[in-house]
Amino acid sequence: MPLIIETWLAYDYTEPTDLLLQIEAALGPDQRVIEHGIGISPVEHFARMPGHDEIGERIWLRVGTGELRVDYHAVVEVNRPVADIAALPFTEPHLLPGEVIDYLMPSRFCPSDLFGTFVQTEFAGLGGGACVAAMRDWIAANFSYVPGVSNASTSAADSILLRQGVCRDYAHVLVSMARAASIPARYASVYAPDVDPPDFHAVAEVWLGDAWHMVDATGMARPDEIARIGVGRDAADSSFLSSFGIAQLVNQHVSVTRG
Amino acid sequence: MPLIIETWLAYDYTEPTDLLLQIEAALGPDQRVIEHGIGISPVEHFARMPGHDEIGERIWLRVGTGELRVDYHAVVEVNRPVADIAALPFTEPHLLPGEVIDYLMPSRFCPSDLFGTFVQTEFAGLGGGACVAAMRDWIAANFSYVPGVSNASTSAADSILLRQGVCRDYAHVLVSMARAASIPARYASVYAPDVDPPDFHAVAEVWLGDAWHMVDATGMARPDEIARIGVGRDAADSSFLSSFGIAQLVNQHVSVTRG
Amino acid sequence: MPLIIETWLAYDYTEPTDLLLQIEAALGPDQRVIEHGIGISPVEHFARMPGHDEIGERIWLRVGTGELRVDYHAVVEVNRPVADIAALPFTEPHLLPGEVIDYLMPSRFCPSDLFGTFVQTEFAGLGGGACVAAMRDWIAANFSYVPGVSNASTSAADSILLRQGVCRDYAHVLVSMARAASIPARYASVYAPDVDPPDFHAVAEVWLGDAWHMVDATGMARPDEIARIGVGRDAADSSFLSSFGIAQLVNQHVSVTRG
Amino acid sequence: MPLIIETWLAYDYTEPTDLLLQIEAALGPDQRVIEHGIGISPVEHFARMPGHDEIGERIWLRVGTGELRVDYHAVVEVNRPVADIAALPFTEPHLLPGEVIDYLMPSRFCPSDLFGTFVQTEFAGLGGGACVAAMRDWIAANFSYVPGVSNASTSAADSILLRQGVCRDYAHVLVSMARAASIPARYASVYAPDVDPPDFHAVAEVWLGDAWHMVDATGMARPDEIARIGVGRDAADSSFLSSFGIAQLVNQHVSVTRG
Repeated sequence: MPLIIETWLAYDYTEPTDLLLQIEAALGPDQRVIEHGIGISPVEHFARMPGHDEIGERIWLRVGTGELRVDYHAVVEVNRPVADIAALPFTEPHLLPGEVIDYLMPSRFCPSDLFGTFVQTEFAGLGGGACVAAMRDWIAANFSYVPGVSNASTSAADSILLRQGVCRDYAHVLVSMARAASIPARYASVYAPDVDPPDFHAVAEVWLGDAWHMVDATGMARPDEIARIGVGRDAADSSFLSSFGIAQLVNQHVSVTRG
Repeated sequence: MPLIIETWLAYDYTEPTDLLLQIEAALGPDQRVIEHGIGISPVEHFARMPGHDEIGERIWLRVGTGELRVDYHAVVEVNRPVADIAALPFTEPHLLPGEVIDYLMPSRFCPSDLFGTFVQTEFAGLGGGACVAAMRDWIAANFSYVPGVSNASTSAADSILLRQGVCRDYAHVLVSMARAASIPARYASVYAPDVDPPDFHAVAEVWLGDAWHMVDATGMARPDEIARIGVGRDAADSSFLSSFGIAQLVNQHVSVTRG
Repeated sequence: MPLIIETWLAYDYTEPTDLLLQIEAALGPDQRVIEHGIGISPVEHFARMPGHDEIGERIWLRVGTGELRVDYHAVVEVNRPVADIAALPFTEPHLLPGEVIDYLMPSRFCPSDLFGTFVQTEFAGLGGGACVAAMRDWIAANFSYVPGVSNASTSAADSILLRQGVCRDYAHVLVSMARAASIPARYASVYAPDVDPPDFHAVAEVWLGDAWHMVDATGMARPDEIARIGVGRDAADSSFLSSFGIAQLVNQHVSVTRG
Repeated sequence: MPLIIETWLAYDYTEPTDLLLQIEAALGPDQRVIEHGIGISPVEHFARMPGHDEIGERIWLRVGTGELRVDYHAVVEVNRPVADIAALPFTEPHLLPGEVIDYLMPSRFCPSDLFGTFVQTEFAGLGGGACVAAMRDWIAANFSYVPGVSNASTSAADSILLRQGVCRDYAHVLVSMARAASIPARYASVYAPDVDPPDFHAVAEVWLGDAWHMVDATGMARPDEIARIGVGRDAADSSFLSSFGIAQLVNQHVSVTRG
């Protein structure tokens, strides 16, 4: 069953500003974009760039003063197998391929270097997928989904104590824990149905058994109904909109439905 | 005048451990490795991987219990032009090439998202190379080189207040400031003579005028006498040794002299 | 010229809650309360307690569900001399009286232990009142008054980098700096005219020349036009309302005019 | 059975320095000081001050350059009843006496404002002594006593993630948790036998059933074998030695034995 995605954004700029936009579902073997279109109000400059890790695309925009409107729609067929996370094997670090090494390292919002003893204490004796599944369940049991508690500078080290947050925070905590257990983990910006309230969504991806696997610690979305936009070490790399100047939100709407 | 580099490391492991080693001068157009050799005591596994951004190489090792000894020597001719940083032009973000975009983003030890107002206040009216030069001079004027104040989890946000630290901290602060001014910046792990006390060294690299330029906020090293080992978003990406387990330092020696 | 103070608060409680209220101008030699009155909607429990350092009073309330309304008015004559801060002498720590020792120590929002090198670098050679005056001027020059950037968990260590905030943040930064220079400093919750937008206000108090002196780093208020409500190590001690449960703001109004 | 306490300190000062010393067992109804004596090498100034909350005494010293030597011995009979913490009743905040209110508030190393959701999640349904006992047991189960992981600027928010530390960190975490559950809690600097390695020790004190009760989250000491030196909101208030300048540790020895 395909996903039907509709997104509108409107931001107001009081002076000419550069910005980086990443809102389109990525092309890839595990999700087929059947149709899509993006409309952007007149800008001074437009250039497509590959996304982080060559997944999806980022668009450089240079806007003048006034309102920027972006309108995106797509129909995406997701054919991503749903793995039994708990059954996936652990790959010892020295056998990991070069391209996932960076995902073992701490990042701005996933300071995994601080999670070592925590992970060893809380998930002692577990490895690989069984460990990730236990982490996901631990977060589900201990966190409450509460908008407004966290903000753009909240890291997983803050969240582990606050125990409240939104999808971004849930993903950051799971990514941090996985890395602290020597499992490469990244952050994915995605579209998914049933996200409540409807908005851009975020999940963790962990490298187990020679492939990336999506894990949604909020429990809102299933890997076979998730359309990936982009990935990165954490939210810093795959924000849907990064303004290099002051932007004022006017309106934002995300709708994802099953076709 | 070539640089002659000698490095010995000895670490003790009480159980089999995976580790990532990056201590060799990178090959590249701006530094020619005339001769080099690395010796490693017997290990269970050895695999070379590209470094971050395909610069230099990282080596995966699996060691058994006991002492790991590493012995590296090289002769490197550096032919890196020394730019007048202050004269280099600013590239507006929307004109930046895709491969430097990630270096605008905050990272574990360079939380540049927190430096916005600071940079706008302290370096108002400056852009591009003039701004980076002012940042370098500001750090030189306000920081003291004091070993032991910072540790492996110290970030630039800590350092900006502590105003003390070592080369790692100086580089992190400069990288954070540059990114906050929309200038791509990365961290480079390097060898340089005159580092006191002799040790691995670290500098910032900023993207100005379509190229990376080294800037050493400690003032200890000049770009034409620096041999780059590896680069990354911050120290997390280009550590000379990352142990995925417990390592006990036995001995470490770095010597860099002019040939 | 007396200050005329009018304050209304309305909060909604969905379950019975304990709370601590401190909104009345304190009695004291440097401010005379000519008339005052407080009205509180019906509560289950009401008990007056001395404020921190025996300055002003805190009221313990136990409220049931529903709306709590508080209405306070007062006329206060301030006869506090305005000292020339820069001319006040430094008292060496070992000569400080016992009751100010705690105000040399770091607190939740004033982690002065982290400000040592910063203060020594930025204010080298200055001591006592001259140092405090320089700190006040430095903050005025480097900070912008911007509501919404900081929140209830923002500390002076955050603010020193953010360089934006409200009166609470300005006071926390000045208190932290003063303590780092071995000058006892406390936080005062106050009323003052000309605060824009009108609200509760906060200033620092420093111990110089054997007395406490108010310093408003925002520059909005003068000591001879400030009515002190309470004091403490930082905002944690002299919040106008601490709810031990969930409170929903309905309405809040503060007006301070010259009589 | 009395405790026999012997403490020697030697610090070196390269310039005249002010310092605050607090190492003597406090007098009080729950511990009787049978004999005691303190010897201090010649200093320029010596003045006794009451400790925080009038418990014990702090000594202001002004030392010249050279070595400061302090030698303290005491015999203390502790007659503190050992309460069954889990059975102690909760006092609702609005019934708390004025002198314990400050101990509900967050402090430098006990940022209890950040522990709210954590405590509500982890200790749901528990109140008063039962809650404190559960907190103590949770810390014992999840923390490892590891010197060298924490330092003088480590707060309970750091420790809750690191899950390693020394007595100071254990006490800070327990104090933070208790305050977040609306139970007044303070930090006590103490002497106790069986501390391993022998050193100054620290425990939490919680206000339950109208009295302070000691709780040692490390499990090393029992309330009836603990001699209190001083108390405070956290380690900032009851450090055994605060130097307002640079001090170099020469030697330090603490011995506590049963008489």
